[in-house]
Amino acid sequence: MSDTTRHDRTAQQLRLLSDALDSGRLGPIRRLVNTLSPAEIGNLLESLPASKRSVVWGLVDAEDDGEVLVHVGDDVRESLIAEMDPDELVAAIGELDLDDIADLADDLPGQVIEEVLKSMDRENRERLEQVLAFPEGSAGRLMNPDVVTVRADTTVDVVLRYLRLRGDLPEHMDHLFVVSRRHQYLGRVSLGMLVTHDPATPINELMDDEQSPIPATMSEREVANQFSDHDWVSAPVVDENNILLGRITIDDVVDIIREHAEHHALSAAGVDEDEDLFGSVGRAMRRRLVWLFVNLCTAFVASSVVGRFEGTIDKLVALAVLMPIVAGLGGNAGTQVMALMIRGLALGQVGASNLYTLLWKELRVALFNGLLMGAVLGLIVLAWFQNIGLSIVIFAALTCNLLLAASAGVLIPMTVRRFGFEPALASGIFLTAITDSMGFFTFLGLATLLLLN
Amino acid sequence: MSDTTRHDRTAQQLRLLSDALDSGRLGPIRRLVNTLSPAEIGNLLESLPASKRSVVWGLVDAEDDGEVLVHVGDDVRESLIAEMDPDELVAAIGELDLDDIADLADDLPGQVIEEVLKSMDRENRERLEQVLAFPEGSAGRLMNPDVVTVRADTTVDVVLRYLRLRGDLPEHMDHLFVVSRRHQYLGRVSLGMLVTHDPATPINELMDDEQSPIPATMSEREVANQFSDHDWVSAPVVDENNILLGRITIDDVVDIIREHAEHHALSAAGVDEDEDLFGSVGRAMRRRLVWLFVNLCTAFVASSVVGRFEGTIDKLVALAVLMPIVAGLGGNAGTQVMALMIRGLALGQVGASNLYTLLWKELRVALFNGLLMGAVLGLIVLAWFQNIGLSIVIFAALTCNLLLAASAGVLIPMTVRRFGFEPALASGIFLTAITDSMGFFTFLGLATLLLLN
Repeated sequence: MSDTTRHDRTAQQLRLLSDALDSGRLGPIRRLVNTLSPAEIGNLLESLPASKRSVVWGLVDAEDDGEVLVHVGDDVRESLIAEMDPDELVAAIGELDLDDIADLADDLPGQVIEEVLKSMDRENRERLEQVLAFPEGSAGRLMNPDVVTVRADTTVDVVLRYLRLRGDLPEHMDHLFVVSRRHQYLGRVSLGMLVTHDPATPINELMDDEQSPIPATMSEREVANQFSDHDWVSAPVVDENNILLGRITIDDVVDIIREHAEHHALSAAGVDEDEDLFGSVGRAMRRRLVWLFVNLCTAFVASSVVGRFEGTIDKLVALAVLMPIVAGLGGNAGTQVMALMIRGLALGQVGASNLYTLLWKELRVALFNGLLMGAVLGLIVLAWFQNIGLSIVIFAALTCNLLLAASAGVLIPMTVRRFGFEPALASGIFLTAITDSMGFFTFLGLATLLLLN
Repeated sequence: MSDTTRHDRTAQQLRLLSDALDSGRLGPIRRLVNTLSPAEIGNLLESLPASKRSVVWGLVDAEDDGEVLVHVGDDVRESLIAEMDPDELVAAIGELDLDDIADLADDLPGQVIEEVLKSMDRENRERLEQVLAFPEGSAGRLMNPDVVTVRADTTVDVVLRYLRLRGDLPEHMDHLFVVSRRHQYLGRVSLGMLVTHDPATPINELMDDEQSPIPATMSEREVANQFSDHDWVSAPVVDENNILLGRITIDDVVDIIREHAEHHALSAAGVDEDEDLFGSVGRAMRRRLVWLFVNLCTAFVASSVVGRFEGTIDKLVALAVLMPIVAGLGGNAGTQVMALMIRGLALGQVGASNLYTLLWKELRVALFNGLLMGAVLGLIVLAWFQNIGLSIVIFAALTCNLLLAASAGVLIPMTVRRFGFEPALASGIFLTAITDSMGFFTFLGLATLLLLN
């Protein structure tokens, strides 16, 4: 493996920057910062506390400002925009591709967007307005309306002459799109085809019409699935009449995949993906409180189950010592099953037709693991408390709770999804609410039945 | 948003397949399956229980077999390979690109790899052997050695004539690489440049030599970071003498990003990413047991803390009822902090230079949230148990535990990383071990000090 990873490099840059900032020498910082790509500058800004971030942001080349704004999270973007005056902002945004402007539009002051629109020529303004008319998270909002189109009844030679006249192609343009007179999408021709075929070849012989275009209303998550299922680099976007509107390129899709993965990991832990590592304490507090309060409610449910068995615990305090083990192991076993289910649902691999096969498999895994872990736990408890009844109770309770956890792990994400929510987010709360409450209930309930009568 | 998502489509296909399989009509299944891309067939096979999977696998077009094997997880791949005879397998593998063969190599019987190598011409055999010599997870193992190279001292016209003679280009080839006489990498020329410039233009005027090539020893995780930082579609791979070895394309990078995200989500839950949804019960059991046993050990640590306070609980059973709340909320608050830290570490945004700024911020968030949640919890406890002392104890214990949880959330991933492990995997165990044990300790300890004397 390589010796210098991104982590090492950024850590090194951070150290250099910190030293330079502390000593007030801004020249070296400016040189360091402007050797980086906009994405790397964005990453660096996200790593800096507010005061240092502001100094470094002031040193970034004005021509990179727009691209850097594209590459940072919402909270950090807000803090950077707050430090720019409207003219700077209009200039920075004006440098960007149309799809990037559309991406930032919701975070910009209305007056800035108006200025940017005013500074554009009519064609680009209309294109941008068309993109902005689609809702966030749709293919229409994600697309770049900047496409190069050709007619099917022309030849390679004519197209090459047209392209030489036209000059530079937009970034990541690996295909030209073939359209009808009414701008309807017919197919695409790769640049690779153009350069490997005889100049006299008609375009319609080279045209690939197998890839169906993406409807502008498709969700960005589905766009990402289509790209990775078909190994696309770019894809045409059409409206409901098959009129070509723009194209989506793989670099935007990579960003979506990364964002969704981050969103998944953070939302499962109850954090907002846009949270700025060095943001204000008040904002971080408010954002996390919601989730903590939900957890307080579910914790009270579990706690009230324990409350019903106060009398039992009063007679045998060892129960209070052991009850967290039964609840905790149930939660962990259920989390394993649920993680597999959530992935299966995201990939579309689990549905009504195979749900019961899956549930049956998981119940068998839970039964065997429950019997085995229960036996080990039972033996340890026997050695610790010298109480055979308690040992049998914890053995039975653990097995029951693992069976329950497996059912909950399979059924909760399925149910959450059926109600139209994202399985990862809410499932964790429900799962621990069930494994905790039922873990306490089976353990203390069995103890009441078997040990106190 | 679109009406038919991938989930809906696959679910529909699954239903159709299930019905067809139950009725034994194989013709419709064959037609349905062979309209799908290899990635989609792979996804479908992963959704089927063993017996049905075997029937459907037999119906897949032989020419798609290799591509499907590339697109499934390790466990499912093993089950599919087990059903093919060596000749079929050699034929299927022989159809693949060199980088895909390299990708499968570790899962194939040695005799099959030998047969495949024997069936190749000398050039391809040597290239494949070169790729296989690099360790799994490195850029060298990921690259496709199939590149098109040109010389810097030639012109656009000469290159176009060469390409027309050569014929079709490899997939995702958006750049030609410019090399020296000794095959050292000098720069690259995009197809877009070739088609938009005058035929007489010298190649060295169009050559982009700014993108530094990827060393074959770079880790695939770092390759993915480079691609997404620079919005690349393909990148050259070189050895330590700058000799061009091959190229890496964005489709493989997308797979890496997806795999790493899945690995992250599943390993944090204690599941192997290669686990087959419908694999054998015995294998699933064994894989999950390891993690459950680790959790059993940490649960015993927490439980032994409770054990030290048996006397206190014996005098006030309400403590047993309330203690899971203090421990649980600490665990959740710590998980929030840890999720942010793990993302920050993965992106290289957290290092020694900003660790204390971050810890200080998280301690303030924890203090304010602790005081607020503690006050709410204290009031509820006062209403429930009518015991002002108990109410003050739970208020203080929760605040302490949230402060501890924030410190653990920041410091554990940092420490795990320093010891060279992946922060996501082990951090969760340590965190709950600490928040549970310390939650019980502060709550029961304070109760012993303040309520029993």
